[in-house]
Amino acid sequence: MSRYWSELVRRLEPYVPGEQPREAGLVKLNTNENPFGPSPRVLEAIRDRAGDNLRLYPPPDARQLKCVVAAYHGVSEKNVFAGNGSDEVLAHAFQAFFSGVGTIRFPDITYSFYPVYCGLYDIPFRAVPLREDFSVRPADYRGAAGIVLANPNAPTGIVLDPESVESLVRDNPDAVVIVDEAYVDFGAESAIPLVRRYPNLLVVQTLSKSRSLAGLRVGFAIGDEALVEALERVKNSFNSYPLDQLAIAGAVASFEDESYFQQTRGAVIAERESLFAALVERGFRVLPSATNFLLAEHPRVPGGDLAAGLRRRGIVVRHFGKARIENFLRITVGTADQHGRLLEALDAILPR
Amino acid sequence: MSRYWSELVRRLEPYVPGEQPREAGLVKLNTNENPFGPSPRVLEAIRDRAGDNLRLYPPPDARQLKCVVAAYHGVSEKNVFAGNGSDEVLAHAFQAFFSGVGTIRFPDITYSFYPVYCGLYDIPFRAVPLREDFSVRPADYRGAAGIVLANPNAPTGIVLDPESVESLVRDNPDAVVIVDEAYVDFGAESAIPLVRRYPNLLVVQTLSKSRSLAGLRVGFAIGDEALVEALERVKNSFNSYPLDQLAIAGAVASFEDESYFQQTRGAVIAERESLFAALVERGFRVLPSATNFLLAEHPRVPGGDLAAGLRRRGIVVRHFGKARIENFLRITVGTADQHGRLLEALDAILPR
Repeated sequence: MSRYWSELVRRLEPYVPGEQPREAGLVKLNTNENPFGPSPRVLEAIRDRAGDNLRLYPPPDARQLKCVVAAYHGVSEKNVFAGNGSDEVLAHAFQAFFSGVGTIRFPDITYSFYPVYCGLYDIPFRAVPLREDFSVRPADYRGAAGIVLANPNAPTGIVLDPESVESLVRDNPDAVVIVDEAYVDFGAESAIPLVRRYPNLLVVQTLSKSRSLAGLRVGFAIGDEALVEALERVKNSFNSYPLDQLAIAGAVASFEDESYFQQTRGAVIAERESLFAALVERGFRVLPSATNFLLAEHPRVPGGDLAAGLRRRGIVVRHFGKARIENFLRITVGTADQHGRLLEALDAILPR
Repeated sequence: MSRYWSELVRRLEPYVPGEQPREAGLVKLNTNENPFGPSPRVLEAIRDRAGDNLRLYPPPDARQLKCVVAAYHGVSEKNVFAGNGSDEVLAHAFQAFFSGVGTIRFPDITYSFYPVYCGLYDIPFRAVPLREDFSVRPADYRGAAGIVLANPNAPTGIVLDPESVESLVRDNPDAVVIVDEAYVDFGAESAIPLVRRYPNLLVVQTLSKSRSLAGLRVGFAIGDEALVEALERVKNSFNSYPLDQLAIAGAVASFEDESYFQQTRGAVIAERESLFAALVERGFRVLPSATNFLLAEHPRVPGGDLAAGLRRRGIVVRHFGKARIENFLRITVGTADQHGRLLEALDAILPR
């Protein structure tokens, strides 16, 4: 604490990202990264762009990327906002749409950055309990001043059906509804087609997970033109050039290699299903997942103990120590080899 | 305007960055980019990093970069904060140190992003008039709740002497003083050595200008540990990973190639001096510059007319149309070739 900290800084409770350990040889299944690298065309595009041109500012509106995303998702470029990772896009959206509007709502078990943004922008919120089975009850959100829904949800992995998502947006016409689709490509249906009909819907996606580009920091939002314009106003009051030239080039190339995307996405889904079965076989309760991770608990060994035991064996998973999920581990879907090492370690830890 | 815009979004007046024209063959002297490309070692480091590792998140604290910057400037890594361009660093600093503290002050003619940040974070400010010769009078800042000083100043190019900078920091011990040194490498003395003695001083620098990396988006701040910790708290409530892997690798390599830095920096200074003389010879009043740009006015041709005439001849400079400097052009220092084309165009436009 320091006399130079504003009241705001004093009361912040920052987000704590998953550990990024530096030891070699670890099986890193803690931050939902893709086990496959990015498309070779992405790497080529980045290397091509690493030239004298870096002396110049990037286009402030990342227009080339907006056009590619718009074409891919069948919307206009005026419906697309781009940012330095979906975390930045979400931050701007919270400030643009939820500052001073009243109390917003999101589930009690969801992406733990949402309450942090509320702290940063002084936005009151209510964390609405998920049902016992960790599903969302749309009626609980009626009358909220703003709504944030991670779909599929994290860290549960559970998807809300498209009709229920639409009902959330339709039944709350005075509230902006942010649907955070960080994991949508691993098995859910996007709400993007609804953007045409609902001016209060903002869909946020990232290139960090299904496009294997966590290290490049690119996210985007799709919504009505007026919502995108609001985001641009905030962004242009914060940082004119949030996306560097290399990030724009790499992201564009990613959308231009559809076959690589489909192939790696399919491989992750297949690995998820086989890991799911292997965990169930070992007595775990595993929540149904439409993502690249599994939330699983063992009936007899506490989650914290399991996570610690795995860490000692060189395997890093995420344990949240949070009410309702303190007994669960969130395990990122990896390669078959990584799963082999994980299961071997579990077999050594778990009681017979 | 939309019903979904918060009050905040409605009243924002976003920053307008200089034009990034796409036409080929233009002489672009409008956004203070370096005429020389980045060090070849920077490009090599970026290409080396463009691999499968991009599937992983960057280290959230960009520690490698902090260590290199700390060693370069003779401070501890705990005195270093890194961000996605110095614009992001400044935004976080305004929010961290000026939210709710009272009325801050900065010069009336200075980087036009400062009042924009105040709008974004609802910070009252007073724009203190520079003297007639565009110099800063330190006594005018006594009693401010916070102070921002661009040194050298932009768009004037004028530097405040080190003793006066120190007096600003020393005489306002209750206020955080941000010294924005975006252009310092082109001829001014940095305030970084004062950080050890003054816990209220934050010095901000960028790699966009003297290190030719505007397209990579890297900036940093150096200050007392407590100030850096406050910035980390804000950053970790906004975006855990603002610097992508390639930006970190490129920035680190830039600090490791001191001879390239000194050589290009010297060349820019030499070109500035020759352009200064050529403009004076043509009747311009040119302010003394310690930066990579010149602020110049012609006694008989209005700045707006000159800018338009140059644009028609394929030369882009910046004209602000702002009180006190509406007659001036801000001209980025380029190569000898670019200056040749600029002077040729001026000779065609100016009356004999």
